[in-house]
Amino acid sequence: MAEPNERDRYLKQALRLARRGSGLVSPNPMVGAVLVRGGRVVGAGWHRFYGGAHAEVEALRQAGARAAGATLYVNLEPCDHTGKTPPCTEAIIAAGVKRVTAAMADPNPLVSGRGFRRLRGAGLEVEEAGGAAAAAAAVLNSAYLVRIAERRPFLALKIAQSLDGRIADAAGRSKWITGPEARAYTRRLRFEYDAILVGINTVLEDDPGLDYQPPARPPAAEKTYWKIILDSRARLPLTARCLKRGRVAVAVGRTADPDRVKRLEAAGALVLAGAGERPDLPEVMKKLYKLNIGSVLVEGGAEVFGACLDAGLTDRVYLCLALILLGGRTARPAVLGSGRRLANPARFRLTGTRRLAEDRLLVLDRADGPGT
Amino acid sequence: MAEPNERDRYLKQALRLARRGSGLVSPNPMVGAVLVRGGRVVGAGWHRFYGGAHAEVEALRQAGARAAGATLYVNLEPCDHTGKTPPCTEAIIAAGVKRVTAAMADPNPLVSGRGFRRLRGAGLEVEEAGGAAAAAAAVLNSAYLVRIAERRPFLALKIAQSLDGRIADAAGRSKWITGPEARAYTRRLRFEYDAILVGINTVLEDDPGLDYQPPARPPAAEKTYWKIILDSRARLPLTARCLKRGRVAVAVGRTADPDRVKRLEAAGALVLAGAGERPDLPEVMKKLYKLNIGSVLVEGGAEVFGACLDAGLTDRVYLCLALILLGGRTARPAVLGSGRRLANPARFRLTGTRRLAEDRLLVLDRADGPGT
Repeated sequence: MAEPNERDRYLKQALRLARRGSGLVSPNPMVGAVLVRGGRVVGAGWHRFYGGAHAEVEALRQAGARAAGATLYVNLEPCDHTGKTPPCTEAIIAAGVKRVTAAMADPNPLVSGRGFRRLRGAGLEVEEAGGAAAAAAAVLNSAYLVRIAERRPFLALKIAQSLDGRIADAAGRSKWITGPEARAYTRRLRFEYDAILVGINTVLEDDPGLDYQPPARPPAAEKTYWKIILDSRARLPLTARCLKRGRVAVAVGRTADPDRVKRLEAAGALVLAGAGERPDLPEVMKKLYKLNIGSVLVEGGAEVFGACLDAGLTDRVYLCLALILLGGRTARPAVLGSGRRLANPARFRLTGTRRLAEDRLLVLDRADGPGT
Repeated sequence: MAEPNERDRYLKQALRLARRGSGLVSPNPMVGAVLVRGGRVVGAGWHRFYGGAHAEVEALRQAGARAAGATLYVNLEPCDHTGKTPPCTEAIIAAGVKRVTAAMADPNPLVSGRGFRRLRGAGLEVEEAGGAAAAAAAVLNSAYLVRIAERRPFLALKIAQSLDGRIADAAGRSKWITGPEARAYTRRLRFEYDAILVGINTVLEDDPGLDYQPPARPPAAEKTYWKIILDSRARLPLTARCLKRGRVAVAVGRTADPDRVKRLEAAGALVLAGAGERPDLPEVMKKLYKLNIGSVLVEGGAEVFGACLDAGLTDRVYLCLALILLGGRTARPAVLGSGRRLANPARFRLTGTRRLAEDRLLVLDRADGPGT
């Protein structure tokens, strides 16, 4: 086995590579791979887009004959099944790789443990790193892990609020709580998610485009991108900006006017009809899961955030704090709904902070979520 | 003049020493002094308590004859007037100090510029550091600077809330949003302030003692400590825990029952009678200023925080965030009152962060306050 420092360094490199697939590989996990022989990197790669080659295969291709006798570092257990591509285990064995160090096992029942067993069976040394490397790998692939474990998309809330938790002042003004850098960050963040979800009031009030900003580096493939609108009575105007680009799904209730529903469908929207008066969030999530949507970024408003919280569907929060106090008996709080009890709140751990000009971003992951 | 690095180092040391007077020197500023000769510290001291020797004199005493030809580093311009003690300038000149480097001038009209002029007149080299050293010195003595500039006490809010700005859940439960470490921090923080202020509802609901935790190092003097209760109708029970220790002032409105007022006075409380139905915060602050109270820590509730915000009286916020979301249409927001407009909110800058077990503390200073 490699020295712990060396191992951690290459696992970190694999994780950095993996992250480059962000926004394009879902619902697959992000995977990066590094091949090392004689203390030198002889191959490296990552899973670039859904349907494309796996990270291990990319690294093996780069290494060619130098893969023989090498150690493979990878952030997730290699797959042993034929999906869109042949099993990675076969390619690894065929190339003569000697050792495989993976940060964590893959919980996908199609993979879990089988990849490791197959490699061991072929005489390779196999190590599952665990510890901090596994925790970091789990946080990176939180969306994948939640999807596998709970058969629903990963759900993140993006909340832009004052220090005292207001998203509008007492006069109802909400534009803009946070500054241009925070809003630009949000547009880049959207690229990391498969779908954006908002309530109809947000659309009617602000008419947001809900589009993403692609990363500076040209993406390896076209992004599949959904906009989800919770819209009990199918009030979404056909002229709404959000209808112009990407796929749009509108979750309506049973009292929605059938004519409006038809017109939305004619405009290209997918209408998700619910049995209740209002769309039921867990039910909507099941439908999004079946559409292969692995992650959803919820952008408001306050009642939608509240519905997520009430349903226990909050895996992550991007809390963007404007360093202001607003106060006021009638100013809108960021999160409404029925609310959680103090004895049983939604608990988080702080996994990142970031300065966005005058604003501060806190990234909070569910306290009992992946990586804990 | 000293090398910038050397200068900054000794000014930082002076600032660290100054801080040791925290909680005991008010309404005086915190001052620390370091005497350096031939690259060695020959004397150091700080203002330990109100009425005690000034920092410069403490340092000179320690240095004795070695003060001759030395450089004095101090975080504030030395005084040139006789207050509780003789002027520091005289002692500095008499000891044969050669140079004086102060982080900032003293804005107190009794001192401002006069200290520097007197020293220069006696042939000493005098330097006002300015820049980062002055900013750090101003932040340390924010309470003093606000008191001098605005003729009122420095006002800090201590808010313990959920991430979404709630101080109680939808069922009204508020005990405890934050954990024991955050509460212990608050008791230590109280020592740094001359007074704690709360609304009567907080007293009626929680019956808090409102006492401080002294620092581990035994204080150099007894602390003068006030508890201020905003109590329009003089409802403070004579059995309230907060009446047991320290001085208590009760700000009442004109409709307060005279008998209740008399009984409070008999119990040792100072009653501050207001002309309006409710105590007017700026008016109360003027009275506290006249009582020599230099700084007030406001601990709630939500309406009191709102009154501070509405009156533009918020110099600092200690925002203690529990990493939870509560949500809920009826859960109490942290800051009520009339509220500020988004075009004119109370703006802050982040001057410190701290981990308090599961909770996170943000220290926020007024955006246009001392040190900016």
